[in-house]
Amino acid sequence: MPQIILQRARVLDLRFPTSREQIGSDAVNKDPDYSAAYCILETNTGLEGHGLTFTLGRGTELCVEALRYLAQRVEGRTLESITSDLNGFYLEITGDTQFRWLGPEKGVIHLACAALINAVWDLYAKAEGKPVWKLLADMTPEQIVAAIDFRYIADALKPEEALAILRRGKEGQAERLAQLETSGYPAYTTSAGWFGYSEDKIRRLCQEGLADGWTHFKLKVGGEPADDLRRARIMRDAIGPGNRMMVDANQKWGVETAIERTKQLAEVDVWWMEEPTSPDDILGHARIRRETGVRIATGEHCHNAVMFKQLLQAGSIDVCQIDSCRVAGVNENLAIILMATKFGVPVCPHAGGVGLCEYVQHLSVFDFLAVSCSLEDRVIEYVDHLHEHFLDPVRIRRGHYLLPTQPGYSIQIKPESLARFEFPAGAAWQEDVTPSAAK
Amino acid sequence: MPQIILQRARVLDLRFPTSREQIGSDAVNKDPDYSAAYCILETNTGLEGHGLTFTLGRGTELCVEALRYLAQRVEGRTLESITSDLNGFYLEITGDTQFRWLGPEKGVIHLACAALINAVWDLYAKAEGKPVWKLLADMTPEQIVAAIDFRYIADALKPEEALAILRRGKEGQAERLAQLETSGYPAYTTSAGWFGYSEDKIRRLCQEGLADGWTHFKLKVGGEPADDLRRARIMRDAIGPGNRMMVDANQKWGVETAIERTKQLAEVDVWWMEEPTSPDDILGHARIRRETGVRIATGEHCHNAVMFKQLLQAGSIDVCQIDSCRVAGVNENLAIILMATKFGVPVCPHAGGVGLCEYVQHLSVFDFLAVSCSLEDRVIEYVDHLHEHFLDPVRIRRGHYLLPTQPGYSIQIKPESLARFEFPAGAAWQEDVTPSAAK
Repeated sequence: MPQIILQRARVLDLRFPTSREQIGSDAVNKDPDYSAAYCILETNTGLEGHGLTFTLGRGTELCVEALRYLAQRVEGRTLESITSDLNGFYLEITGDTQFRWLGPEKGVIHLACAALINAVWDLYAKAEGKPVWKLLADMTPEQIVAAIDFRYIADALKPEEALAILRRGKEGQAERLAQLETSGYPAYTTSAGWFGYSEDKIRRLCQEGLADGWTHFKLKVGGEPADDLRRARIMRDAIGPGNRMMVDANQKWGVETAIERTKQLAEVDVWWMEEPTSPDDILGHARIRRETGVRIATGEHCHNAVMFKQLLQAGSIDVCQIDSCRVAGVNENLAIILMATKFGVPVCPHAGGVGLCEYVQHLSVFDFLAVSCSLEDRVIEYVDHLHEHFLDPVRIRRGHYLLPTQPGYSIQIKPESLARFEFPAGAAWQEDVTPSAAK
Repeated sequence: MPQIILQRARVLDLRFPTSREQIGSDAVNKDPDYSAAYCILETNTGLEGHGLTFTLGRGTELCVEALRYLAQRVEGRTLESITSDLNGFYLEITGDTQFRWLGPEKGVIHLACAALINAVWDLYAKAEGKPVWKLLADMTPEQIVAAIDFRYIADALKPEEALAILRRGKEGQAERLAQLETSGYPAYTTSAGWFGYSEDKIRRLCQEGLADGWTHFKLKVGGEPADDLRRARIMRDAIGPGNRMMVDANQKWGVETAIERTKQLAEVDVWWMEEPTSPDDILGHARIRRETGVRIATGEHCHNAVMFKQLLQAGSIDVCQIDSCRVAGVNENLAIILMATKFGVPVCPHAGGVGLCEYVQHLSVFDFLAVSCSLEDRVIEYVDHLHEHFLDPVRIRRGHYLLPTQPGYSIQIKPESLARFEFPAGAAWQEDVTPSAAK
C-alpha cells in the first residue's frame, strides 16, 4: 500500500432532534438533542478516518470549532508519522500550550481531542484492514504501552505493570475470540427506563425486552422519592427476580441525599447505582459505596485518566464506566482499562447517544481478549436509537453485541444522514418544528 | 434609582501579545498570549456590568462563543430579578440542560459562566455604589448563604455551618477594615521568577522587588533538576533567609517525580510547592504533602467547588488558591472561601493574567473582613503586567494591595484598550509581527 497522507480534515456539526420524543431524558438531561462534532480525515488513498464526539445539542458548535483547530495538526501528515508514536501524537493533540488552559484535559477541548484521536484510530484500523478491536488485540504489549501517557498515572500503574497485564492477556486469546464469535459480548438495555417514559411504557418495554432476550435493565431515577420507588418496583415486577436491574441518578443528588436514596432503592435489589452524585466527587462516591453497601458505578462524565485513577485508588466504584469520547479517545481508554484490571474493577462502558455503542464494543472486546480476559460482571450499555445512520451499525442478538467485522471503528455515518442532520442547514432542521437546539 | 434593566450583552475577544516577551512563561504554559473573553452588560441607566474570563490565546474564541450564548439569558431581565435569587441565577447559568454535558461545571463552559456571573456582580456592586468586597461584607449571612449552591458540598459544609462562620465574621469587622485601610492586604510577587527569564534577570528582579518592599517571591520550576535547583538557589540567595520563597511547577510532574523534586527543592526553604502535579489529582496532592512535609498549594486549575471540597477533605493542601474565573465567579468562590475557613486552610488567590489581580483582591478582602477574619499565612499573588489597561487598576504599596475604593469589581478595561486588543481586528494584531495566537 502506498504511503497514506492525511490531506484534509472536514468537520461537521450533526444534530438529531431527539428531544421531540424525550428520548434520552433523565433527571438532569431533560431535553437532549443527540449530537456530534464529526470529523472526516481524507487521504490520498481514498480511505477516510471518521471520528465523532457526542454532545447534547447546544454547544456542539464549540466542539466543532475546537476540533477544526486541532484537526489542522494532522493535515499533510502521513498516517505512519502518527502511528509510529501514538503517545507523542496524543500529547501533541491534548497538550497545545494555549488550548490546554481551557481544560486541562477536560470539557470541550478534551471532547474535541477524542473525535480527532478516534478518527485517526478508525483510519489506522481501515489501513490495516481490521476492526479497531482486532488492531488493538494484535498489537504487541509494547505497542499498546507506547500509546499511553503514564505521566500522571504511573503512581497507580507503571508501564511495566501494564506490560505484565498485556503479556498475560496474550494467553488464551484465540479461545476467548471463539467464545465471542459464538455468543457475542453481554449487554444491558437502557431503552426501557428513560425518565420521561410513562409507567405503562416502562412495563411494556420491559416485556418486549424480555422477549428479545435481555437480562439486564436500567432505570433512570432522581425524581421524587415515591415516584422513583414506584417506577423501580414496576420495572422489578416486570423483569422478575431472576434478571438484573440497575438504577441511574445522573448526578442528581448530593452525597448524603444519595446515601439515603440509594438505601431506599436497594429494596428492589439494584445491581448497581449509577452516577449518584457529582461525577467529580471521588471521595463522595467512596462514602456512598461504603455506607450503602450497594455497588456503585460511574464514569461517563469522568473527564480523564487521572480521575479514573483516583476512583480506583479510593475504592469509589464497583463498575468502571468508560466513555469512548469523554476522555481523549482510544489512547486514554487503554490506560483506564488497564488500571481497572489492575484494581480488579470490571469495565462496563457507557453507551447510547450517537455512535457510543458502535465505539465501545471495540473497547470491551479488546478488554476481554487482551486485558481483563473476563466477562464476569461485565456488560456493555445498549440503547436502541440512531443506529440506522451508521454504515456498520452494532448488531444485537439476545442481549449480546455481535463481534464487529468491518475494518475501522464502526463510527462512519452514512453520507445521506450526514447531509440530513447537519446543523442548521440539513433538512431535518429546516422542517417546521421548534427544536430545543434552536431556542 | 429606577429599575435597572439589562438591555444588551456585548462580548469581545481580547488578546494581548505577551508571548513575544515570554511574559507568563512556565514549565507547561510556554507561550501564553494573555487573553480574555470579555462581557459588557449594558443597561437602561448607563451603568454597565463588566466581566471577563482569563485565557491564554488560542481557544478564547470558544469561551467568547459560549459566553455569547449564555449572556442571552440575562438580556431583557431586571438586575433585581437576578440579585433577588443569586443561587437560582447561578444554577440557571451553569445548568443549561444541553451545555451542561460539555462540562459539567468545568472547562470552556464554566470559564464562560464566570465571565457572565462576575459581570452581574460588577453591575450589582456599581448599582449599590460599592466595591464588590464591600457589597459582600455588607450582605447579611443569610444573603451570602442564599447565593451558594450547596447541593454537592453540603457533606462538607452545611448552610447552617456557613451561617455560623459568617455571623462570627460580623464581629470586629470595623477594626479589620481599619487595618486594611492603613496597611493594605499582604501580597507576593511572581514577576521575578518566570520560567523563560535568565538567571541574571531573576537576580536583578529580586533585588528590585526587595527595594520595593516585597517579602514573598515565587519561582517557576519544572525544568531539569539541576537547573531548577540552581535558579532556586539564586532566588534564595538574592532575597536572603528572612523572606519567603515559593516554587511553582505548573503541573509538570507525576506524583512520584513530584515527591522527589519537592524534597530536592526543600533545600532552599520553600514556603510552598505549587501545582506539583495534575490539578485533578486530589489523592496525589495528599500523598505529596504527606511524604514531603512541604506545604502544598493548588487551585488555579481546580475547576469547581466539588474539587476544592475534596482537596480540603483529603488533606491535600495547605494553601487554597482560588481563581476568580476558573470556577463560576463570585458565587462559587463564596462557597470555596467558606469551606477553606471551616477546614482551617488559608486562601491565597491565584492572580496575574489579565484582570485576575483586580478581581481577587475583592475576594481576599471579603475573606478577611467576613469569613476567615485572619491575615495569617495569607497573601494574594501579584504580577506586574497589563494593569495599565484597567480603569480601576490594583494599587500596590510595599508588597501590599491597597483597598479598592471604586464601585464594582475593578475589572473594567479602558475603551481604547478594548479597541486596540480586540482579536483579530485590533491594531495590536494588525502590526507586523507573527503572534503565536495566529499561528
